[in-house]
Amino acid sequence: MAIAITLALSACGQPSPGASAPAAGETAAPTVHRWKLITTWPKNLPALGTAPERMADRIREMSAGRLDIKVYGAGELVGAFEVFDAVSQGTAEMGNGASYYWRSKLPIAAVFSSVPFGLTAQEMNGWLHYGGGMELWRELYEPFGIVPMAAGNTGVQMGGWFNREINSIGDLKGLKMRIPGLGGKVLEKAGGAPVLLAGGEIYTGLERGVIDATEWLGPYHDTLMGFQDIARYYYTPGWHETGTMLEFFANKEVYDKLPADLQAILKSAAAWSNLWTLSQMEAKNAGALTTLLEKGVAIRKFPREVLDKLRQYTIEVIDDMAAGDPFSRKVYASYDAFRRKAANYSLITEKEFYEKIQTGGELDLG
Amino acid sequence: MAIAITLALSACGQPSPGASAPAAGETAAPTVHRWKLITTWPKNLPALGTAPERMADRIREMSAGRLDIKVYGAGELVGAFEVFDAVSQGTAEMGNGASYYWRSKLPIAAVFSSVPFGLTAQEMNGWLHYGGGMELWRELYEPFGIVPMAAGNTGVQMGGWFNREINSIGDLKGLKMRIPGLGGKVLEKAGGAPVLLAGGEIYTGLERGVIDATEWLGPYHDTLMGFQDIARYYYTPGWHETGTMLEFFANKEVYDKLPADLQAILKSAAAWSNLWTLSQMEAKNAGALTTLLEKGVAIRKFPREVLDKLRQYTIEVIDDMAAGDPFSRKVYASYDAFRRKAANYSLITEKEFYEKIQTGGELDLG
Repeated sequence: MAIAITLALSACGQPSPGASAPAAGETAAPTVHRWKLITTWPKNLPALGTAPERMADRIREMSAGRLDIKVYGAGELVGAFEVFDAVSQGTAEMGNGASYYWRSKLPIAAVFSSVPFGLTAQEMNGWLHYGGGMELWRELYEPFGIVPMAAGNTGVQMGGWFNREINSIGDLKGLKMRIPGLGGKVLEKAGGAPVLLAGGEIYTGLERGVIDATEWLGPYHDTLMGFQDIARYYYTPGWHETGTMLEFFANKEVYDKLPADLQAILKSAAAWSNLWTLSQMEAKNAGALTTLLEKGVAIRKFPREVLDKLRQYTIEVIDDMAAGDPFSRKVYASYDAFRRKAANYSLITEKEFYEKIQTGGELDLG
Repeated sequence: MAIAITLALSACGQPSPGASAPAAGETAAPTVHRWKLITTWPKNLPALGTAPERMADRIREMSAGRLDIKVYGAGELVGAFEVFDAVSQGTAEMGNGASYYWRSKLPIAAVFSSVPFGLTAQEMNGWLHYGGGMELWRELYEPFGIVPMAAGNTGVQMGGWFNREINSIGDLKGLKMRIPGLGGKVLEKAGGAPVLLAGGEIYTGLERGVIDATEWLGPYHDTLMGFQDIARYYYTPGWHETGTMLEFFANKEVYDKLPADLQAILKSAAAWSNLWTLSQMEAKNAGALTTLLEKGVAIRKFPREVLDKLRQYTIEVIDDMAAGDPFSRKVYASYDAFRRKAANYSLITEKEFYEKIQTGGELDLG
């Protein structure tokens, strides 16, 4: 059998470092790696929930079936917020979510998805891939035996649906708003009351006045929730999530054992998903917002002085979060240094583009 | 040898549809596809010139060496502007460039890279991947036996380096500017004189007053050219290139013969390159512009009335270009319909972000 095995190996072109070779005497049938991927979203959530299935399909195609990933939606194997621990412990080989979901364990992880007044999608990719961000993300997850991959972005989100106007920072006092995470902490500093409500409870909560306002995502997902039928004002911009990065992650032990070609295929598929998700959000949000404008949705813009105050509270919230932990301070320092350079660039390019070049949008609709 | 061949095949996981299997009696060594990729850029041009090599490396990794692409810079096999024809004729299996280089053959092709007053990088990806753009691009290249792939973006470019100020549309009269393509045609309508100069001749041309102004790319590439040492003003925004998409393309006949797994690997690598290139441009441009600002470069912004007039000329230029060809009109109609929806969305999200959220940039530097 020796010659057969040798041929099998060379036919795979697999004498590359890290490639798994069948041991002598074993059958030479291809090793199929069957993995479980658990997500923090329901499988049918458009764009975010469907991305892992699509990625798994592409991986099967690229690997000719040698890496076969089965996707489980939130609650099918473990609950949404147990995904990180389950992958860390090897219950599943891969997970999918956004790093700010692991804030209770790793507060600074939020920086790798989104912090208020943060980076745009394009800037986030710049920081992660060419600004040292990915290296810091890997270092953060390493003690948990987890390898992170950047895997998609929501783009600049909307500020949410409100049943009262926000004309001054005082109007946020006592405001009961569904806004989780750091955005909620910032609202609290402004005297507001962040309320935790699961996705399925928000519509009824807003309709019955349990909450006065809610954020969700962008025009596409917001419209699917039906908020336009029950809320008075649609506020912009989404100061609390300016370009939320989504993530795939793998259990490091099983990832390290993958042949080098399958590791490369996995990373490439995550990058593909990064591109698709943002592209889909762009196209779907552009269409949905156009429809909302045609139907006469009442857009409101947060006044500059409200945003300036919220920015100040954000700095306090992030300072609290990073204080006392040198690695957290290092992560935020890297992020913020990139943000300042990116701001120099985009305030001179993108800002000028949106102010003077792009027309034919909002203005046409009055 | 029969048993050895069978084992070799199954070890490759290749009984998938479209996978190439050696015919009975042939050797079971893996079919290595050796391709040539010819680019329109010098191989050492940062980001743009290095992307194909990097893509070829990732493809070798993902395919365990079964798709082996050798990259040739402009002039090594064929001249920069012969790349499209050479791939069409099968002289090389793949090409790399930007679709506006093929304007003399296919005027409307420019829409798939960049037209003045066009889409941003994010919007371009939205249109191509979720707005019908890729389908139209494939249809346009199909008669030439070429399969296009979106493969990177420059982001919003700068407006160029000027030795005189532009305060009114009249200041463009008689202006000798190195600006190729549609931007040059628009400048001509404003009474300016677009000058064709190869990359290596621009610096001397500007220094000696052969030209009064030149555009190039963004802060990173512009700085490498040394324009900051000889030009007075750095103008923004790059109205002529608002988000130029780069392309890979393959000869359709050889592409169609690739096994399905290698086709998927190739497409995934192009998407990876799409993400990398823009991320690299973002990070490098942000750094280079910050350095320029610290050194006191004189930034100038085109006045709104100048841009409004240039936009009007652009519409005329594009109308001329698409007139008389129904398919060209169909392509531009799809692009422009997407642009309008994207404008609704970004004028309400991104524009608000850049106006009120992003700080700590330009303003800090005075």
